[in-house]
Formats: sequence, structure tokens, C-alpha cells
Amino acid sequence: MTDQDRNSVPPEGAAFGAGRVTAAVLVIGDEILSGRTKDKNIGYIAEYMTNMGIDLREVRVVPDIEDEIVEALNALRASYTYVFTTGGIGPTHDDITADAVARAFGVELYEDERIIAAMLERMKPEDLNAARRRMARVPRGGELVPNPVNKIPGFRIGNVIVMAGVPMIMQAMLDSVAPTLQAGVKLSMRAVDADAPEGAYAAMLGDIAKAHEGLSIGSYPSYVDGKFRNQIIVRGRDPDEVAVGVTKVEAMLAQLRAERA
Amino acid sequence: MTDQDRNSVPPEGAAFGAGRVTAAVLVIGDEILSGRTKDKNIGYIAEYMTNMGIDLREVRVVPDIEDEIVEALNALRASYTYVFTTGGIGPTHDDITADAVARAFGVELYEDERIIAAMLERMKPEDLNAARRRMARVPRGGELVPNPVNKIPGFRIGNVIVMAGVPMIMQAMLDSVAPTLQAGVKLSMRAVDADAPEGAYAAMLGDIAKAHEGLSIGSYPSYVDGKFRNQIIVRGRDPDEVAVGVTKVEAMLAQLRAERA
Repeated sequence: MTDQDRNSVPPEGAAFGAGRVTAAVLVIGDEILSGRTKDKNIGYIAEYMTNMGIDLREVRVVPDIEDEIVEALNALRASYTYVFTTGGIGPTHDDITADAVARAFGVELYEDERIIAAMLERMKPEDLNAARRRMARVPRGGELVPNPVNKIPGFRIGNVIVMAGVPMIMQAMLDSVAPTLQAGVKLSMRAVDADAPEGAYAAMLGDIAKAHEGLSIGSYPSYVDGKFRNQIIVRGRDPDEVAVGVTKVEAMLAQLRAERA
Repeated sequence: MTDQDRNSVPPEGAAFGAGRVTAAVLVIGDEILSGRTKDKNIGYIAEYMTNMGIDLREVRVVPDIEDEIVEALNALRASYTYVFTTGGIGPTHDDITADAVARAFGVELYEDERIIAAMLERMKPEDLNAARRRMARVPRGGELVPNPVNKIPGFRIGNVIVMAGVPMIMQAMLDSVAPTLQAGVKLSMRAVDADAPEGAYAAMLGDIAKAHEGLSIGSYPSYVDGKFRNQIIVRGRDPDEVAVGVTKVEAMLAQLRAERA
């Protein structure tokens, strides 16, 4: 088990619902839905949240249509501690995330002088055209999320954090906002490689799960190097109970080996 | 432009709404939300739909919690022509997709004899335990979606297609169901590499977009080989109008080059 594993906090069911810090991701962009651009942000944010002890509980991808962005944003921000959006904050006519967020919160957009100043450090005044000024628009009540890459920040309003879609910039914005987020309770997690088919241990594994309400036990098949591989993941708040669960899982697998022998 | 481009049909706004065939993807799995497993299915299905002329309009990722799967499924199946689910159809206690789909449709699950027979071709009767039999459960009214990889099929009920989460198997199931789907009207699409920053052409591009209601024009920045790169995508039903749009975009970029010179 690595430290990364120990810090992992996969999303939980009822067993861990109480007092958890939760998050959702809203990916905004036709290019992701067309398959033309392959999203690299969902998995990155998911791992990042897990390592902060925050449960990523839902992801939605919607097109560049204001009504759909507003509807998804209002549904998600009402359900989770934090909502992270990616994409749609550039200068072109199809960049409408700021407009949608302002509408969702029922506030106006204002032009932030700090963003204008940051832009003027990087371009001549005559290049600061109306389109680029759009990138300086922030919903009233929003706070800037610094972006060390190209200096044009994202913003946060309420529990919604608005970030760029380009992964390198999104990652920098996530690093900027992370220290301001409430971290969750970190859970212990252990992974056991299962040397048996899922169908052979499913019933016994289900019994172990039933016997440990405080644990979340999952079985994850994958296809690696030309063969199927199963991993059993045991996670929980109490490291001792996790250890007990892992011992039971290992005993179960040993029993299956014995039966095969 | 490649044929693949010509056949591409990115999701559309109002301009293309009428008579479009639409789809949504529902990814079911804690392991995706924890970041432990990186989804490879969304982008694959997105491209697949695009090449069939079907607009992928929304994606959701939800945990292995029945209530949340049912809620998302009912929202999506009411809104789009097709809904594709991935994940949660294995034999273990955390594989609850069939249960959730049956509940969403208000029908019972039955054990399909064809699936049992397919399993018995690959295992001894004594190995066909209760857990493995769970994989033979199909909601009443469902049709099987053949799976040539390990023979255990997915299923389709109404406009919902239920597939495995392991990419190789999901892809085989998608190939099986594709011929039964209503293909959409294919749109022409052209990509133009923009040798200028978005902020320099945003206003002019917006004017071109306004002048062509029949086109959907997008600008997509990316970071490739250590530098930012912008692509302008022009798409539409009428190839002649797309060609006119591309000509205007190229003239716009030429004008910017001249101004820089």
C-alpha cells in the first residue's frame, strides 16, 4: 500500500455519508462531447479531490449552451459542497461560462480591474480589445482564482469554482484554490489483487461487506497486458477495521486457491 | 479535411436542434469518481456517436448508489434519443446497474436462459453460482446486446443501452448495438488552424458566426508541444455554406497576418 492509497478517499455510499465534504465537476464544452478533444480534467480533479479527503460525487459534461450550463450548475451547486467547472472562459463568442454562472447566481458581471491590469502587463493597450476584455468579466461577489500560467484568473463564487479547460491552466488554478477548500476526513484504503474470477468470490465478498457496515468494499475488473485482472478495494474510516476487512478478503482468496488445488 | 472530419457531427446549439438524433452517456462507478480508474469510454463513445451523426449532448458520472443511478437515468432517458450506460454489470455486490435500470423502468428482472446457456458453454455447471447468475438478469422487456469478447451480453430496454465498463467489452457491445440505432444527419465539418491568438480574432469570428445562422463555429485552444494552439471549427448541414464560412475564416486570418506584417 502506498501513502497515496492510504490517503485515497473514493466516493462513499451511506456508510460514509455523514459529515463528508463532497464535490462535483461540470465540464463545459462541445469539443468534449464531439470526442474531438479527449477530457483530461475529470480524472485529474478526481484524484486531486480524493487526496484531499473530498468525495467527488458527480460529474456532468454539457455543451456550450447557456440554458443547459445554468440548469446543470444550479442542480450541482445545491447538492454538493463544491462544484468545479472547466472550460468556456476564453475570449470568443462560444465562451459563455461566466455569463451562465452569473445567471445561475442571479448577479451581474463586472469588469475586474485587477484582471485588466494583469492583461496590460502582457499586451499593448491597443491589443486589449473588447473580446479580451470579456475574460476580465467576473460575477458580482466572485473572488479571483490566480492563474500563474498566463495570468488570466478563474473565479470562485459561492461554492462554485470556475476554471479554464486547458489542462495545464486548470491544474494551476486548482492548486491556487485548493488551500481555500475544506479538506475532508481521510479514509484508509487497501487494494488486494484477486487471483480468482469475480464470479468465484462474489458471494463471499458480499458477506464480508455485509458484516462490515463501516467499510466500503468494491471489486474492480480491468483488462491489462492481454488478460483480465480483478482488484478488491477495502476502504473505511477506521484503519483497524480496514485491516480486518483485508484479512478476511485475503483469507477468502486463500480458501479459493486451496479449493482449486 | 479527412472523411472522418467530413462525417463529424459535434453537438449543436439551436441552429441544428430540429430533427437531430441525440444521446447521453451515464458512467456508473465509484472507481471513476475516485480517480483510481481513468475513464476511457466517454471519449470513445463521443467519437463513435459523432461518426454516426448522433449528437452526444450530455454525460454524467455517478457512484454505485442505486438511488443516484435511477435519478440520473430517468432524467437522461426523458431528454435524449439514446442513453448509454457503462459499468456495474458484473457479479459482485457492488454491481447494481441492472437493478437500477429495472427500477427506473418499473419492471422486474428475469433470468435470461440464453445468457445462462452462454455461460454454461464457458464454465462447468457447478461453477455457475448465484453470483454469476446475477449477470444473467435482464429487465422485463429488455433485448440482449451481444458481447463477442466474453459472451456475457449487455442489454437494451427502451432507449437505454446498458454496457460493461471494461473498455474492450464496452467497445464490442457498442459495435453490436450500433446497427440498431437511428443514425443522424451527417454534418460537414472543417478545421482551420489559427495562426493568431483567440483574443485577436474573437470579435471578427463572432461576426462571421452571427452572419451564418446555419453554421456552428467554435474556437478551441489547446497546449501542444510546449505551445498554445488554436483551432477554429466550422460545421453545418450545407457543405457549401461550410465552405463559405471557412473562406471567411481564412480571409480573417490572412487579414491578421497582414496587420502583423
